[in-house]
Parts: sequence; structure tokens; C-alpha cells
Amino acid sequence: MDYRIEKDTMGQVKVPADKLWGAQTERSRNNFKIGAPASMPLEIVYGFAYLKKAAAYTNCELGVLAIEKRDLIAQVCDEILTGMHDDQFPLVIWQTGSGTQSNMNVNEVIANRAHQIAGKVIGEGEKTIQPNDDVNKSQSSNDTFPTGMHIAAYKKIIETTIPGVEQLRDTLQKKSNDFKNVVKIGRTHLMDATPLTLGQEFSGYVSQLNHGLKALTNTLDHLSELALGGTAVGTGLNTPTGYSKRVSEYIAKFTGLPFISAPNKFEALAAHDALVETHGALKQLAVSLNKIANDIRMMASGPRSGIGEIIIPANEPGSSIMPGKVNPTQCEALTMVCAQVIGNDVAVSVGGTQGHYELNVFKPMMAANVLQSAQLIGDACKSFDENCATGIEPNHAVIKELLNNSLMLVTALNTKIGYYKAAEIANTAHKNGTTLKEEAINLGYVSADDYDAWVKPEDMVGSLK
Amino acid sequence: MDYRIEKDTMGQVKVPADKLWGAQTERSRNNFKIGAPASMPLEIVYGFAYLKKAAAYTNCELGVLAIEKRDLIAQVCDEILTGMHDDQFPLVIWQTGSGTQSNMNVNEVIANRAHQIAGKVIGEGEKTIQPNDDVNKSQSSNDTFPTGMHIAAYKKIIETTIPGVEQLRDTLQKKSNDFKNVVKIGRTHLMDATPLTLGQEFSGYVSQLNHGLKALTNTLDHLSELALGGTAVGTGLNTPTGYSKRVSEYIAKFTGLPFISAPNKFEALAAHDALVETHGALKQLAVSLNKIANDIRMMASGPRSGIGEIIIPANEPGSSIMPGKVNPTQCEALTMVCAQVIGNDVAVSVGGTQGHYELNVFKPMMAANVLQSAQLIGDACKSFDENCATGIEPNHAVIKELLNNSLMLVTALNTKIGYYKAAEIANTAHKNGTTLKEEAINLGYVSADDYDAWVKPEDMVGSLK
Amino acid sequence: MDYRIEKDTMGQVKVPADKLWGAQTERSRNNFKIGAPASMPLEIVYGFAYLKKAAAYTNCELGVLAIEKRDLIAQVCDEILTGMHDDQFPLVIWQTGSGTQSNMNVNEVIANRAHQIAGKVIGEGEKTIQPNDDVNKSQSSNDTFPTGMHIAAYKKIIETTIPGVEQLRDTLQKKSNDFKNVVKIGRTHLMDATPLTLGQEFSGYVSQLNHGLKALTNTLDHLSELALGGTAVGTGLNTPTGYSKRVSEYIAKFTGLPFISAPNKFEALAAHDALVETHGALKQLAVSLNKIANDIRMMASGPRSGIGEIIIPANEPGSSIMPGKVNPTQCEALTMVCAQVIGNDVAVSVGGTQGHYELNVFKPMMAANVLQSAQLIGDACKSFDENCATGIEPNHAVIKELLNNSLMLVTALNTKIGYYKAAEIANTAHKNGTTLKEEAINLGYVSADDYDAWVKPEDMVGSLK
Amino acid sequence: MDYRIEKDTMGQVKVPADKLWGAQTERSRNNFKIGAPASMPLEIVYGFAYLKKAAAYTNCELGVLAIEKRDLIAQVCDEILTGMHDDQFPLVIWQTGSGTQSNMNVNEVIANRAHQIAGKVIGEGEKTIQPNDDVNKSQSSNDTFPTGMHIAAYKKIIETTIPGVEQLRDTLQKKSNDFKNVVKIGRTHLMDATPLTLGQEFSGYVSQLNHGLKALTNTLDHLSELALGGTAVGTGLNTPTGYSKRVSEYIAKFTGLPFISAPNKFEALAAHDALVETHGALKQLAVSLNKIANDIRMMASGPRSGIGEIIIPANEPGSSIMPGKVNPTQCEALTMVCAQVIGNDVAVSVGGTQGHYELNVFKPMMAANVLQSAQLIGDACKSFDENCATGIEPNHAVIKELLNNSLMLVTALNTKIGYYKAAEIANTAHKNGTTLKEEAINLGYVSADDYDAWVKPEDMVGSLK
Repeated sequence: MDYRIEKDTMGQVKVPADKLWGAQTERSRNNFKIGAPASMPLEIVYGFAYLKKAAAYTNCELGVLAIEKRDLIAQVCDEILTGMHDDQFPLVIWQTGSGTQSNMNVNEVIANRAHQIAGKVIGEGEKTIQPNDDVNKSQSSNDTFPTGMHIAAYKKIIETTIPGVEQLRDTLQKKSNDFKNVVKIGRTHLMDATPLTLGQEFSGYVSQLNHGLKALTNTLDHLSELALGGTAVGTGLNTPTGYSKRVSEYIAKFTGLPFISAPNKFEALAAHDALVETHGALKQLAVSLNKIANDIRMMASGPRSGIGEIIIPANEPGSSIMPGKVNPTQCEALTMVCAQVIGNDVAVSVGGTQGHYELNVFKPMMAANVLQSAQLIGDACKSFDENCATGIEPNHAVIKELLNNSLMLVTALNTKIGYYKAAEIANTAHKNGTTLKEEAINLGYVSADDYDAWVKPEDMVGSLK
Repeated sequence: MDYRIEKDTMGQVKVPADKLWGAQTERSRNNFKIGAPASMPLEIVYGFAYLKKAAAYTNCELGVLAIEKRDLIAQVCDEILTGMHDDQFPLVIWQTGSGTQSNMNVNEVIANRAHQIAGKVIGEGEKTIQPNDDVNKSQSSNDTFPTGMHIAAYKKIIETTIPGVEQLRDTLQKKSNDFKNVVKIGRTHLMDATPLTLGQEFSGYVSQLNHGLKALTNTLDHLSELALGGTAVGTGLNTPTGYSKRVSEYIAKFTGLPFISAPNKFEALAAHDALVETHGALKQLAVSLNKIANDIRMMASGPRSGIGEIIIPANEPGSSIMPGKVNPTQCEALTMVCAQVIGNDVAVSVGGTQGHYELNVFKPMMAANVLQSAQLIGDACKSFDENCATGIEPNHAVIKELLNNSLMLVTALNTKIGYYKAAEIANTAHKNGTTLKEEAINLGYVSADDYDAWVKPEDMVGSLK
Repeated sequence: MDYRIEKDTMGQVKVPADKLWGAQTERSRNNFKIGAPASMPLEIVYGFAYLKKAAAYTNCELGVLAIEKRDLIAQVCDEILTGMHDDQFPLVIWQTGSGTQSNMNVNEVIANRAHQIAGKVIGEGEKTIQPNDDVNKSQSSNDTFPTGMHIAAYKKIIETTIPGVEQLRDTLQKKSNDFKNVVKIGRTHLMDATPLTLGQEFSGYVSQLNHGLKALTNTLDHLSELALGGTAVGTGLNTPTGYSKRVSEYIAKFTGLPFISAPNKFEALAAHDALVETHGALKQLAVSLNKIANDIRMMASGPRSGIGEIIIPANEPGSSIMPGKVNPTQCEALTMVCAQVIGNDVAVSVGGTQGHYELNVFKPMMAANVLQSAQLIGDACKSFDENCATGIEPNHAVIKELLNNSLMLVTALNTKIGYYKAAEIANTAHKNGTTLKEEAINLGYVSADDYDAWVKPEDMVGSLK
Repeated sequence: MDYRIEKDTMGQVKVPADKLWGAQTERSRNNFKIGAPASMPLEIVYGFAYLKKAAAYTNCELGVLAIEKRDLIAQVCDEILTGMHDDQFPLVIWQTGSGTQSNMNVNEVIANRAHQIAGKVIGEGEKTIQPNDDVNKSQSSNDTFPTGMHIAAYKKIIETTIPGVEQLRDTLQKKSNDFKNVVKIGRTHLMDATPLTLGQEFSGYVSQLNHGLKALTNTLDHLSELALGGTAVGTGLNTPTGYSKRVSEYIAKFTGLPFISAPNKFEALAAHDALVETHGALKQLAVSLNKIANDIRMMASGPRSGIGEIIIPANEPGSSIMPGKVNPTQCEALTMVCAQVIGNDVAVSVGGTQGHYELNVFKPMMAANVLQSAQLIGDACKSFDENCATGIEPNHAVIKELLNNSLMLVTALNTKIGYYKAAEIANTAHKNGTTLKEEAINLGYVSADDYDAWVKPEDMVGSLK
């Protein structure tokens, strides 16, 4: 393979000739062969592209960077955001915990690509712009990486997570309306209970997701705080006056999202409670979605020897050995996602506990988990919605049969004859395999007419008072 | 031991003669010998006392309970809230997952105690008020238990957690002010970095706790939603019109807290995302507190062979074998609490995922963990504050020595001579065991006068721009 | 309240006159008001009693402790082990992370009680034996606390966890035998699948628990390693020659358990991977038990509108509002325990990661979680066994009906007519609401005689080849 | 794009013309757009290749598959194992929880590729071998996927995890030997304590890793049990006599690993406690490694304002803003891995709890987490070893200075003058900023000669007795 020589403060390094990165990226590639290559999420690279461009604009505006350099930097950042340099970021999550090497990867790619754009050949002549002194001007890895990860996480939540959850929520709301008159047996402890409507059941799911969306939205304030301007330890050393506020304004402008400069930069470098907070809300959504998916697969179980109250779409053959089998596969994908998110939450928490002094050095791991969870929840909700939820239909015959069988309709008699006599009726019917009505009359507690007047499932689901 | 006979729908049970509880409590005592007795938190019992009283008032007001019964029930509830019946609640967390048996424990104690108050002997004559038909009127375990646990959790957070965290936050804020001129070495990756003030370091802790308090407060809306009025499956079966709204108003009145009736009762019974949400914020606080306590014990380490930049109070002999040893014991208690809370969060999440159909049956476990975490964080913050944080003082001599030794002061030269030459100075001084100034001059990059003018630690911590 | 004055190296402390503890215990009581008092598990105190007695015997044998002192110490230790001093250990888990104060609590109680036994009055005259120089001789908190917690955990697992799991395992094995001819529908993805016997299902549970017991037993080697003899940092400073081996032999003798001296004392103080390892196996058991309990409650669901294939004992009224309801409450208690254990595992792991240099200071928290999990699993298995598993019976009528309804019996035709034709039969029967046999014949793929010969559920469960 | 038509039991599907997969793979691609494409680990695909070949050999040997078909299947499996078809497996983890679609992906690729090898054109003529009836013969997804994941996990642990940990363990052992005479200050609670050698410290790390390796090895028995032969629900329906034993022998032969047929197939399909068990040991290793990496970075902290007792290799510039900075980046990568593994453990546990009836449907998620953790631990240990551990050297000057400063050397006086007087010496020296010796003499407790004879750090680290 062809190489060229790149240099950093430690000396020379051979870099593949066709790559834009420099010495520090190459050192990291060699020093951290942990897991698959290029595992650092591209979303973070894009976050860097926004912030490097914003820094260049701010530095120029504040008089510490030439306009030609600003424009070269901005041009490469824009290229990165189109995806055209995706193969120039080969580093892994499992590198230095500050993400320094990914910051330098971005700095080096921008500097070398700018050199190309300026009509030069990489590795020849003095660099048109310097990775540290120009691209990284008024910055440190310690403030850029957390800024990049906040940009990435915020965008992912806005663009993927929330739309995915809302799409599913809307479908469940529609189903709740559609099913508002479908009276069915309720179940508590998995056991027969008093009736409710299928629409009421689905309204609970909607309420869960609405609370989850609200909880997630509550976390966005903290996530909107950007570390940029804190530089090495939070003091803003080597930044021009007015820098941190202005650079955040540029980032807000370039991303279209309401980012602000973190009021306290020391927290913003040394702790990533904002990620912990956001992931906590993602985990809450995972908890809710797990309950919803579980309910749906239990209600859809069968088709002949399960509960079978609802019918879900058959999207693919369910078994490689059992012909004609159809399975609740979307529920399974979703609940696997939920388990992963609950696990990721622990990884994020453990990372969050371990900031030391002025810097938390679990940044790439924490960010990668937030991004994965945000992506998986959004995608899985969309997939579940389109391939399952929208197609859910009640199996009216089964619902009716299971409703009418239930002994818990006896509860309607509590306010008429008291809990103890009602219990006697239910217990006797259960023992004898008979109906409530038969035993109510046999025991002499209720007349046939009263029974019919009092025990009406459709009257037992009544709107909440 | 003396016994009396109590009855329920399943038959007769012997109950210790001196106890107020009835048949169902006794069955539970015998059927669930899991862990220490009486592990069900008393806070939940008190939550029940509030709601039983509120239900009695509402039932009376809506015409379904006699005023005499209301007053008897209310009187016993008030007695319970004084703690005088604490030994009447022997059940464990590890019972039925709906907490039915604890609901019945409360119902039975109220009924039997009311019988006493009415001048009767327990076990003789017809009960003055019935556990199910009177005390439990318009209620189910399925809506009372979650109501009781919301009341308990909300009160604990308001009365213990938030005041504890605020007390510590206030002290850290005061220290941040006191230490605003104490310039010290910063550390990133545990390694020497550019300087900041000790006050700035503490301001980061304050910011973390403020964000944590905000996050916790954000969860209180969800927690203020009460399930009461949903009865068995969320439909409100067997409740009089207007009940759920009115009963929540009574609870708000009796507790002095802004409780409301849950807009969606199906969620309120079948899912406990509110507990998941609240515990998520407690876990975030644990993450923050762990970082703070870790920093403080590292900065206080020594006294002679550690970092030693701050001095913490010596509260007790630190070692049973090493004479004169003093340890950061409050940091240790606090970080153990943090680890427990992070673990509890997983238990709560796992419980939250497992609602089935109309009921989540992990209620007692989820509630117990929320209560424990809320208590521990509040108590540990108070203990840490009073026995450690308030007494923290800088060790000025050590701080000054470590600051002046640092090679990272070279960063101030970046904007004067560029990153690469500055690196050369630092590397040379590190290799030779010399000072930055010596090497800066030797290498011919900076004059002595310029060095003194440019490299001033106190100028490197400047207010953020 | 009456007080007496006790002293330690920091000065005088007032101690309640009727208590045996001394100055350091009282300091800890006042400095760590975190959670409920006396939360430090008594099992650990008893572990200390074994080791203090063993140390006294070893010290005496090796010539550094008078025989009179040995006997006094041993006598108090024996008293402690009877439970007669349970109220003398008021400290909490959330103290110093080395457990120093609980070590001193034991030392102080032994010293003061020995003074009493020697006929003196506590607080008067010189102490007959000294807490540090005699009771704690050749010891440090740093090696005694981990020794105490290993003793406590090992005993708990041997005496409670393993017997509880084995008791349940034996019942499930008996049921597996009893049900070996009960052919029923299998379910995969919660959907109807090919048949198996109820005995086969239960054999899977037995196999899970056997693997779990083996995994737990595998961890006992590590847990049998005792830190005692390492003293302050693992070097064994201030211990007589031969001490660590001999003291472990005494502990083994006094407890009747195969304890040995840890080959590496530095690990034994600085890391508690043995607790992490043991709790990992407890967590595995929790995972297994959760699956088993879930299956049983789903199979028992109904009685009329669920699966209803098995009948579980009705131990208590299931509902405060729904008369006659019976719930799988033992399954619920057990699965709540499982969720707690999974959460505790995270707390133990987090504590385990945080050893610093020569000492892990999360000891009390880690030990308390291991003890709680070990107790809960043992108790819950026993409770589940006695109140549920032993009473499980098949509902033959339901099992037969659900089996014969199933479309998945078609799988038996795969090897006769191929997967694709078999699928067509099943799909057609599903669509038309007909039987497999009807459609098999209609489609012309199988004759009636062949169908009857080939599709026999009882032939589809055949012993594994 | 060019397409061809593929069919399954649900009908026709368009598949990209240049791909070997068939209808069911394509359905899954479209139905599960969750996260990045092709996230299903290739290791599992390779596990399938081994088992499909083994099944073909067994089926042939038992007379149910033609030898020509066997050889075609085996040939494609061998091709897959070379990696030449890596781009033919586009499915994601987040699919059906049984992994059915990945089983079918393998079946389809084998069938189509066999068609090519047989000289035919894919999509033309009858398939030379059928995906379900030939490639999947005597198999179900329900037994193949767990078999594939056990093969993958076992191989990963043998080939990557254990060698990585052993390599690091060996280096730490060598360092322990090299440093056996380097006496240094010990630290407990992060505070100065009695001395030990640097070699002793490292011996603790070695002991941790040895225990971890033993724990991991203990789990391999369970992991060696293969589900294959259980088919749909564990009964072995549609397999020839002798199949399950023979097919496991072939897998053992082809992989060179000691796989056996699971004694209980019902567990092997319905529960994945083997993965839970194995991951528990991986998590234990993560706990150990976190402690080790933390210690090393704290001891290496500085270079001038930290502890600085050891020197670690400088592998890359540490800061983009602070010139000359070197950071413990390998420690950071490793501890991030540890946090991830601790999180993954929760995901695996949650998945493990949720088997329902005859099948656990969290298989792909559980397997992916085990594989990731096993890979990351192995890789990170190797990286940490080669780029950090092998280069660790003591900083003798610092070690000596910190040792001699310590007040905890006073502990050596305990056995001479008692704990209380020793404490007085230490406290006085601490207060006055003097040396122990000065105060020992001043207080009249020890003569200068005795002090020198008694307080020798090198005598305080003595071999354990």
C-alpha cells in the first residue's frame, strides 16, 4: 500500500496515501484495535462538522482567523455533512475517553482536504491550514467532543426518536377510538377481571407514550447546553472575548436547533449528566414500549390455543419447520430493543459516575449508547407501527365468548348484595362449572330479572367519574 | 399465644388476640415468609391512611357512606398517621404484586380498631364497619396501592430528598464563592492540565445538583397523578359519580400536596412509568453525587502521599490498626448510596416493563425501591453536608506548590508561539526535569520577560467569555 | 437518658449507659444518620463473632494473647452468636466503606461485655480487655470486614439459598415425572406450536435450576477465601508467624464450612470479585426463576378467559373488590424478588469496579446486597414451592381441547408431503376456520386414513433421539 | 436495480438479482429497518455454517439426505466460513426473536449458491436443493439459532477473550516479579496507609484475573450444550433416530471444540441461562479490569501534580490544546469497555428472564451482547497490554519520597507501645507538620535507636504468614 508521511508533536507516522487523515488519527488506528473499525458514530463526526464550521465563523468574526481560512474550513465541513468523507473517520469508540483522537481526526481531515481544495497536494508544502492552530482554534477536545455529542444526540432525538414514538402513539390513539365500543374481559394478575373496552386498553398505551414523550422533551433543555468555549478545563483559556456565546449561536443557526452555551462549562466538561438524563427518558420509553408490545402479543396469541382477542398482520412465514405459523415478530424486535436500551442505560450511568476532576473520560461510550438507544427506539416504533400496530383488528367472536364466560362480572353485584355474598356466587359457579346467573338464583341472592338488569358488561366499563 | 378467630371469603383464620389485623393479613403472614417481616414500608401504610380517610369523606359526601362510619374511619386513619399502630402492619414487600394484602391489612386494622373505638370488643358481635364494604368502598387494591405509593413517594421526595440535596447544594455554592480566588491546577484524564479556581470546580458540582433537582422536579407532575377511582381495571366500576376527582381533592387537602386524579386510569393501574420516571431522576442525582464525592476524596487524599489540596473534617478514627488515620468516610457512605440507587433503578425498570394487561404486579417492589432511594439520597446528602462539605477547606500551601510545578501552564503560550513550539517546550522540560521558563528561554522561543508576562496562572482562569 | 463516658483516640464521647458499645460506635451512630438504624446485617456481626473468636484462639496459640483474654473474648462471641446481643449493633450499611466502624462496634461490645463477665462495671476501672489491642489483635478492619462478609454470605447460601432452590427443584422434578404422559400444545412466540408433554415442560425448569445450582456452587471456592491475616493493606503487618493459615482453620472449625486463607491477600482487601462472582450466580438463578414463574402464571391464567391448562392453589382471596378472584400471588412474589436481585447485581458490580489502590470501600453495600439476594431467593423458592408448586395440577379437559384445536399438528406432515404443502393445509384451515384433516383431504394431499396414522399428538413428543 | 422473483409460502418477493438470498430474507430486510443494516453478527452466520454442514452430514449418514445434496451443502458452508459470502447476510439483530429469518437467510443462501455450483442459474428451474426441506432438514430455527449462537460465543471466548486476558495477566505477573523489591506507600480509602511493594500490588491484579479466567472457564460447560436436535419445541420432532447426538459430534469435529448435545432440549430452546451465565463471568472480568485500570491511571497521574509513582508509555499527543500532554488513554478505552459490558449484562439478563413457554425470543439480542462483550474484553486487554502494561515502569524517586513522608509507618509501633500511644505520635506529627521520629522522641514513647530499629518500611511488607 502507498503511504505518505504525516507529523505531529511526537514525530512522523506513515499514513495510507489515499486517506485524508493525519498522524494522530493513524496513531489511534494502530493503538486501539478494539472491536470493529470505525465504530465511532458518524453522527458525532457530523456534530463536529457543525461545530468546526461555527468555530471558524466565530473566530473570523472575532478577528483571530482569516476569512480565507474560515471559508476553507466551512467548505470541508459542508462536504462532510453531505456524507462524501464518511470513509475518512476510521476510529473506534474505544479510544481515549475524551474523544481527543476523533477531534484530531476531524481537524486533520479538514486541514488536508482544505489543502486539496486550495489546489495543493496533501503532504507537500506547508499545510494551508493547521489542524491545531487553525481548525482547532479556540477549542479543545474537552469542549468539542461533548459539543459534538450533544448536537448528535439532540438531532437524533428530534429527527428519529420523537417522530417514531409519535407515529406509533398516533396509531394507537386511532385504534383506541376505533375500538371504543369493543367490550372485553379485563385481566389483572393475568386472571379474569371486570370488563373494559379494547379502546380503553389502548388509551392506556397512548397515555404511557405521551408521558414518555413529555419526559424525553423535558430533558432537551439540559441537552441543548453546549460545552464549546470551555476549552481545556472549562475556563475558556485561549478563546477570544465573546466566543462561547457567539459560537453557540452559529451552531444553533447551522443546525436549526435551539442550542445555547452551557451556563456552567465546568459541569459541561467534567460531567455528562445531560446524557444520563436524556438516556433515562429513553429508558422510560423502553419500559413503556415493552409493556405495550407484551400486551399485544399476549392478546394476539393463538390462533387457536391462546388468547386470540386481536389479530395482527402476518408479515412473513413464522417458522422454518412449522408450516403456516405466524408470529408476533414486530413485538419481538421491539422488546429486544427495550432490553438493549435498559442495558445501555446502565452503561451510560456507570460512565456518568466516573468523571474525575475537570473531565469525564467516558464520552465516546456514553454518546454511542445514547445514539444507539435513540435510533433503535425511533426505528423500532416506526417498524412496529407500520408492520403491526396499524393492522391490529379485534377478533370480535373470541372477545365476546371470553367476556361472557367470565366470573368476574359478579363484581357488579357488590353494591347490591355486598362483597361476601357476591364472592359466594362466584366461588360456587367456579366449583360447579356453572354460570353466575344460575348460582345467583340458586343461592337465592338475586332474582333472574335483577341479575339481567344489574350484570351488564357494557354498563361496567362506564366513563370514569 | 392467645388467638381469636377471623373470617374472610375463604373461611376462618386464627389471629393473635392482641393484634388488630384480620384474616387476610394473617394468611399473607403465613404464605409469604420471604425476607424480614414487616418489610412493607410504613410510608405506604401512611399513604393508605390518607387515601382511606379521603375515600370515606368522598363516599359520605356522595351519599354512599354514613357519616358515623366516615368519622370512625377517619379517626383510625389519623391514629395510624401518628404512628401509634405501626406494629399492626406485619406484611412483607414480597407478597402479591398488587399489594392487595397490604390494602386488606389496612382495611382490617381500620375496621377492627373502629370496632374498639365504638366501644366493642374485637371478634365479638357484627363488625361496626366492614373491611371490604365500608373501608374499601369505591376502591380496589388495584387503584389504592398505586395511590398509596404515589403519596408515599411524593412526600418522601418533598420532605427528604429535595431538602437534603438542596442543603448540600447550598453549602457547595457557599464554598464555590469562598474559594473563588483559590487558583489551582486543573486535571483532565487525571493528568495535570491548565489552571482553574477551586471555586470554579465547586461551581460545576452546584450546576450538576441544580440540573438534578430540576430533573427530579420535572417528574413530580406524573407522580402527582393518582389512580384512585379506577377500581378494579381502570373503569371506575362501583364508584359513585364524581368520585375520582373529589377523592383526589381530599387527598391533596389532607397531605397538602398537589395531587390530581390521573387523567388515564388504565395507565395508572397497568403501568408505573411514573415511578420509573421519578427513579430515573433519583438515579441521575446518584450519578452526579458519585462524581462529586469522588472528586472530593481524591482532592483530600493524603495527607502526605496523595493530592492533599483540600482538608476535610476528621470525624472518627479511621483505622482499627493504623493509628491516627483519618478517612473520607462521608464520601464512602455517599458513593455506596449511589451504587445502590443505580442498582435500584434497574429493579424498578425491570418491574416497570412487566405490566400485563390491566395491572402491573410489581408494585410493592417498585415502590419500596423508590422510597429507599429517595430516603438514602436525602439522608446521605444531609450527612455528607453536615459532616464533610461544610468543613472543607483548601490547603493553600499544597495547592500553590502543585500549581507552580505544572507543565501545562505552557498552554498560555499557544496563542503566542503556536501549539507545536509550546509542545516542544513542555516535552523538553518534562524530559530534563526542568521548568517551563528555563526551557522556553533555552529553546529561544520566549524571552524571560515575555514568559513572565504571558504565563500567569491567575490570568488563565478568566471568566468565561 | 443516662450516659457514661467512653474514649477513643479522638477524645470523649457520651454513650447510653445501658449499651455495651463504645466511643467509635457512638460516633458512627451520630455521623451516619442514613436510612433506618441498625441496617448493617446481623449475619455480618455473627461473621465477626466467628472470626474474633478464631483470632483470639490463634493469637493465644501463637503466644501473643493471654489465655484468660482468649476465653473472655470467646465467651462473648458465643453469646453474640446466640442472638443475645442483637440490640448492641446499631450501625448502618451507609458508613465508612471499609466497615471499620462495625469492626469497632464488635470490638467495643466484646471488650465491655468481657469487663462485665469479669465482674466489673462498664466504664469503671481499666478495661479488662482492650478493643484495639486485644480484641482486634493481629487484625485490621480491612481484613476482618471482608472475612466477616465472606462467612456471612457463604453461610447464607449454604443454609438458605441452596436448600430453597433444591426444595423447589425437587418438587418440579416430581411434577415432571407425574405429568410425563400429559400431552399438550407447545407454544413458541406465545403462538401455537407442536405438542409436548407437560412433564417435558417441567423438565426444562428442573434443568435450569440444576444449572443454576451448579453455577452457584462453582462460586463457592472464591468465596471460601478469607482475607484475615492481611491486616491493613494485605502484607500481614503486625501478625505473628503462621497466623493467617491458623486463623482460617479455626474459622473453618467453628463454622463447619471449608474456609481457607486467601492465597492473595492484596486482592482479598482491594477487590471483592468473589462477591461479584457469587451474586452473578444468584442473578442467574433469578433469571431462571423469573421464566419459570412466568410460565406457570400464564398456564394457570383464567380461570375461564385465559389459558387455564394448569390449576394452582388458591391461598387467599385475590381481590378486595372482585369477589371470588384467585391470583398467582406466589409467582408475583417470586418475580418481584427476581427483579430485585437483577437490580442488586448492578449495585454489586458498580461497587466492585471501584476498589482504589489497596482497599475497596464499598464493602458493606456489596455484602448487604449479596445477603439480601441470597435470602430472598432461598425464601421465595421455599414459599413458592410450599404454597404453589406442590399444588400444581393439570386441567386435563382444557389441555386436551387446546391440543386438538391446534393447527401446528400439521408439522407431522412435513416429512411426508413437504413443508410447502403442509403450510398450504394449515393456512387454508386457518382461513376457513376448519380442521387440518378436512383441508388435508380437500386439497388432495393426504387421505383420511393416512392423516389419522400420521398426525398423532402423542407420537409427536417422542423421546429425544 | 435488477430483480428476480423468489417465493415462499406467502407468495412472491422481488430480490436484488445479484444476491443469493431468497424471499424470506428479503421480507425481513423490508420489515425490520431498525438500526444499521447487517447488524446480525457474522460470527453467528459462521456458527450456522458449521451446524448446517453438520446437519447435512448427519442427515446423510442417517439416510434422509442424498450424498450429493450433503456435499453441495457442505461446500457452500465451507465457502461461507472463508468469508466469501459475508455480504449475503443483510439482516439485523432486531428481527424475530427466534432468529428465524437469519436461519432462513442461511438456508436460502446455501440453496441458491448450491444451485450455482450445480451449474444452474438462480431463479431458473427447480432449486437443486430446497431451503426448508433439504438445508433445514431435521432442524428448526428454534434449535439452530441457539446452536449457532453457542458455537459463536464459545469460539469467541476461546479465540479472543481468554487469550486477551491471559496475555495481560502474564504481563502483570512479570511486572509483579520485576517490582517485588519496590517498597512503596500503601493507600486505603485513598489515604496513606502502611507500605507494601509495587510487586504485591500487581500480584493482586494477577489474582483477580486468574479468578476471572477460572469463573469464565466454569461457564463453558453450560455453553458447550447444543440445542440442535430439539427442533420446534424441544421434542426432536421430525428428526431421525440418533440425530441429536451425532450432529453434535460433527459440530465438535468441524469446530475442534468440545460441544455436546444438550441433555435437556426444552431448556435449550426456552431459556438461555447459558448465555446469562457466560456473560456474568464476562461482567466479573469487566469489574476486575476496571479496578486495575483505575489503579494504574491514578498511580500514573501527574506528571508533576499527581501521584506519579509509575510511568506509562506515551503513545500519542494527549491534547489538542495543551501541548506536551500525555494521557492514560489505554486505561480509558478499557474502562469504557468495562462500563459497556456491565450494561450489556443487564440487557442479557432482561432478555433471559423473558422466555415464554417453549421459546425464548430474545435470542439475537442476547447473542449479540455476549459476542460484543467477549470481543471487547479480549481486544481491550490485548490493546491495554501491548500499548500500556508492558511499558509500565516505577518512578523510583517519587515512590521513595512518598513512602518516607507517610505517617502510617507509625503502625509498626502498635505491637511495641500500643495503638493509643502510636496514634498520639501520628496525630501530633500531623498537627505540627513534623516527622514521626521527632514526635516519638519528643513524647518520650520511643528512643531514637528503637525508632530506627522498629520503623523500617522494608520490614513492614514481609511475606504473609
